Amino acid sequence: MDNLKKLQQELINSNYDAYIIPTSDFHGSEYIADYFKSRQYFSGFTGSLGTLLVLQNSAFLWTDGRYFIQAEKELENTDIELMKIGEKNVPTIKEFLNSNCLTIKTLAFDGRLISANDVLNLQKGLNQNIKIQLDSAIIDKVWQDRPKMPFSNLYILPKFFSGKGIDEKIDTIIKIMDEKKAQGYLLTSLEDQAWLYNLRANDIPHTPVFLCYTYITHDNITLFIDTNKIDLEVSKYLDLESISIKPYFEIYDFVKTIKSKNILLDPTKVNYSLYQSIIEQNNVILDTNPTLLLKAIKNDIEIENIKSAHIKDGLCVTRFMKYLKEEYIKGTELDEISLSNYILELRKKEKGFIDISFSTICAFNEHGAMMHYSANNETNAIIDKPGFLLIDSGGHYLEGTTDITRTYALGSISKEMKKHYTLVLKSLINLAKVTFMQGCTGMNLDILARQHIWKELLDYKCGTGHGVGYLLSVHEAPNGFRWKRVSERNDSAILSPGMITTDEPGIYLENKYGIRIENELLCIKAGSSSYGDFLKFETITYAPIDIDAIDINLLNSEEKEWLNEYHKMVFDKLSPFMNEDEIEFLKRYTKNI
Amino acid sequence: MDNLKKLQQELINSNYDAYIIPTSDFHGSEYIADYFKSRQYFSGFTGSLGTLLVLQNSAFLWTDGRYFIQAEKELENTDIELMKIGEKNVPTIKEFLNSNCLTIKTLAFDGRLISANDVLNLQKGLNQNIKIQLDSAIIDKVWQDRPKMPFSNLYILPKFFSGKGIDEKIDTIIKIMDEKKAQGYLLTSLEDQAWLYNLRANDIPHTPVFLCYTYITHDNITLFIDTNKIDLEVSKYLDLESISIKPYFEIYDFVKTIKSKNILLDPTKVNYSLYQSIIEQNNVILDTNPTLLLKAIKNDIEIENIKSAHIKDGLCVTRFMKYLKEEYIKGTELDEISLSNYILELRKKEKGFIDISFSTICAFNEHGAMMHYSANNETNAIIDKPGFLLIDSGGHYLEGTTDITRTYALGSISKEMKKHYTLVLKSLINLAKVTFMQGCTGMNLDILARQHIWKELLDYKCGTGHGVGYLLSVHEAPNGFRWKRVSERNDSAILSPGMITTDEPGIYLENKYGIRIENELLCIKAGSSSYGDFLKFETITYAPIDIDAIDINLLNSEEKEWLNEYHKMVFDKLSPFMNEDEIEFLKRYTKNI
Repeated sequence: MDNLKKLQQELINSNYDAYIIPTSDFHGSEYIADYFKSRQYFSGFTGSLGTLLVLQNSAFLWTDGRYFIQAEKELENTDIELMKIGEKNVPTIKEFLNSNCLTIKTLAFDGRLISANDVLNLQKGLNQNIKIQLDSAIIDKVWQDRPKMPFSNLYILPKFFSGKGIDEKIDTIIKIMDEKKAQGYLLTSLEDQAWLYNLRANDIPHTPVFLCYTYITHDNITLFIDTNKIDLEVSKYLDLESISIKPYFEIYDFVKTIKSKNILLDPTKVNYSLYQSIIEQNNVILDTNPTLLLKAIKNDIEIENIKSAHIKDGLCVTRFMKYLKEEYIKGTELDEISLSNYILELRKKEKGFIDISFSTICAFNEHGAMMHYSANNETNAIIDKPGFLLIDSGGHYLEGTTDITRTYALGSISKEMKKHYTLVLKSLINLAKVTFMQGCTGMNLDILARQHIWKELLDYKCGTGHGVGYLLSVHEAPNGFRWKRVSERNDSAILSPGMITTDEPGIYLENKYGIRIENELLCIKAGSSSYGDFLKFETITYAPIDIDAIDINLLNSEEKEWLNEYHKMVFDKLSPFMNEDEIEFLKRYTKNI
Repeated sequence: MDNLKKLQQELINSNYDAYIIPTSDFHGSEYIADYFKSRQYFSGFTGSLGTLLVLQNSAFLWTDGRYFIQAEKELENTDIELMKIGEKNVPTIKEFLNSNCLTIKTLAFDGRLISANDVLNLQKGLNQNIKIQLDSAIIDKVWQDRPKMPFSNLYILPKFFSGKGIDEKIDTIIKIMDEKKAQGYLLTSLEDQAWLYNLRANDIPHTPVFLCYTYITHDNITLFIDTNKIDLEVSKYLDLESISIKPYFEIYDFVKTIKSKNILLDPTKVNYSLYQSIIEQNNVILDTNPTLLLKAIKNDIEIENIKSAHIKDGLCVTRFMKYLKEEYIKGTELDEISLSNYILELRKKEKGFIDISFSTICAFNEHGAMMHYSANNETNAIIDKPGFLLIDSGGHYLEGTTDITRTYALGSISKEMKKHYTLVLKSLINLAKVTFMQGCTGMNLDILARQHIWKELLDYKCGTGHGVGYLLSVHEAPNGFRWKRVSERNDSAILSPGMITTDEPGIYLENKYGIRIENELLCIKAGSSSYGDFLKFETITYAPIDIDAIDINLLNSEEKEWLNEYHKMVFDKLSPFMNEDEIEFLKRYTKNI
């Protein structure tokens, strides 16, 4: 009997008509540890987004456009029906449940895996015949070789890296709680807690966080965590800050003991089980986690560090570029996987390097057109003809997190390729060099990048950029560049000095090639006048943009000037750390055009 | 006893503690007829925005930043206290009422003068001790020499002007009513009704509408109007379309007879008295008037006509420019008022001209820095030195409404003036030449104009543009260009082919000068691709942009190319209607730069 059948048998035993398995952990994380990959286990589908609905005799998987082809393939030999989100005549999960409400009377799920908001939204307009039942045990019963809960040791990020102590951060949070008249604050998102405690670990791939919950009152801060992750040093450190420690799973009993309080919580982050326990005996203040904005606005020490991290990262990327360009000309056999490894090895040599910040995308020609391509042994392309190599990669350093994309021309490329490359470059430049009034969001600015690509009736089907954490997630809310609000992404906040956002326009032509150039932009003050306060961006990514791929006739003088100044800065930042041979190469690729 | 004292005596007689007098008519119009200017009558304040709150022994006037100086002056010899909206420590009306709730127990106003939404918002959070009383008679009792209700004769806009008959428009509205499951639809905004009936009149200065209400069901359309405004031709015309006619004021009794229906109405437009009568016995569907969007999207015949109107208007503006430039050089004595009259006389000569579309702004040098300047005998400036003359004017023609601003350099102007002029021109051009995806709003595009001005830490404190009606209001929702949403303006709709929006960036330096260049942009299709549908703009204003004021070093080659193409189009459109002398002038001012 296969995994899914076993689960369906268990549904019958438990009298559940349907069971929802989302792609999530108990904290609403973007990336999840193996322990939580139950949707993948029961469906075989490996994509990063999907919801499995299991009925007693059938099953349905919802996923989005990025994964239609992959999901079709992975579900081929199963009885699971693919539900293509956004396609015509494909119902949402709620619509599906409602139209099957005669047979689906009991709907179960693990309330720890879905946010309070998502459950409340599901309930709105759900047929009243359908009763919701929380069940957190059923998966464990069926999944016998289930991976262990993630485990990694905590380490401290000293103040010369973090810039602010726990005490200062707590003080600010308490002030915000007072403004909101909150007596308690339940914080469950992992990045926010790692930021708060200036602690990091390795519970989730490429995201240096650890599973935990925090409850804050005016008198006490309680951290719920697997205490084995805390060594003597961290223990002393938390003690000094008067943080109480309790076992990780104890949070579920603990919240039941809170009574008659005003509790601040973020319903998009706090899971439904916790939310449900709290509302029974308390008043809740539903609001975005105040830590979200505090974390997004980097302090001066963080900014100083992040720039150092970008110099290190820029050195790696430039050395990679030199290797690629030179070995390609020599005719050395190169392929996507070995190149990914090559840049990994370069980063590993840098002091303070911890991990890559996401799976490297190294994509040759047509592979570059798939925005989320990741080479494997089956797809691994040999770089043996002219074209574009797109490499999107980044590192976690003690001094911060980086995210950079470069697209390199190899051999002789067509006029159209140069044109498209130059359009992407124009997009990058025109967003980077804007001055704007305090109050603007990414929705106001996105067109500065996109207009050059729209002019050709092309588009990239994603935002122009996202916030970046400090040795945290490489995708960080609430800042971003996007022309249409996507409420669940929460990335259209007002831009403020200290925020860091990527600038990564692109052109993706199916079966041909993909072009993306990505720098990170630090928001800084531009000055004030009687009209108000103005902001601008400082580019903090330092690596040559491949001038071999540019059609300079398509750049106007301001764009050329920007590029020349950028390349001068890149040379000034990187050359002090390079050998003569590297400096020669850098000179050539940062020369004025 | 002065007017205000008389009103206060009447409040005492009626046992009202407070009476609100807004600036409005029964239809929520932007501009109002003299009959409705009670706020002005009782306060002496003549601005276009303000609310008077009269207590038994005191009175308070709320107005915004545009009018602080004027209001202070006009209220000088009264006992009315000025309340500066938006200033620190100045309460809103609701806050003021709440903090005086011990003395203000009965608050009265004419429920026909305030929208349902505004009253509902006022009631939210209003102290429960304050009782609201509707009174529509008190003003009449006190205002003895009150102007008559506006009266003008209706005239028909034939289908070769309007492009669509009443029947087609009604069909569409009925379809929308069906979608919303509405059995009745109450339409009270004047422009929407003028559009629906293809009728125009002259009840309000510069806005060719007439006071009326409309109630639509599947079986019947009833127009409430002063029947004396309808001559035999219009009467036959409405008869043919099976429109029932009832006296204007009968609507208030009529709505009380509607029972147990689903009634569609726009609570931002329908006044509170009507709303209140309807909700007593019906279910209301609150939504934006569907006519708003239908009216904003001009049909092909309207567009064809509007372009003809713009040619006529462009001829007037160009002849004005020729007169101004030539007479200035000759040393002829020119002043703001005589120049306003000069352009009026030019427009009057054009066939199909009905009225100017708003009070002409003709402002020399420092007067141009006041965005809403209107010359009077006291301020009238003589044009006897070098500088900028800003003229913002427009016409109502049978073929449509125009709105155009040009700023002309007279004599030798400074380098800074040329720089500022060129920045404004860059702003105009870069918005005009964008290609964008279907789905964008003005909030996405505004930065294309504003960035050039923001770069110098300057700003213009208004939107970049507004919708324009067809022989209706020169300011028309729901399209516009603005970077921050202003919900009460409702001008951030998704841009659609057929919408017409002004593009009018500016620089305003207090006590120095103002620069504004304004063209109208018609939204059109740019093409489709696998990425989606794209839109762009066609400029439909035809008049030279003063090249004497440009610093061409500040324009890039794309901007120069746009300007040269624009001027070529202006020449092609206007020269066929000009004499030799005029053509010579036009040639000079539309030459390539």
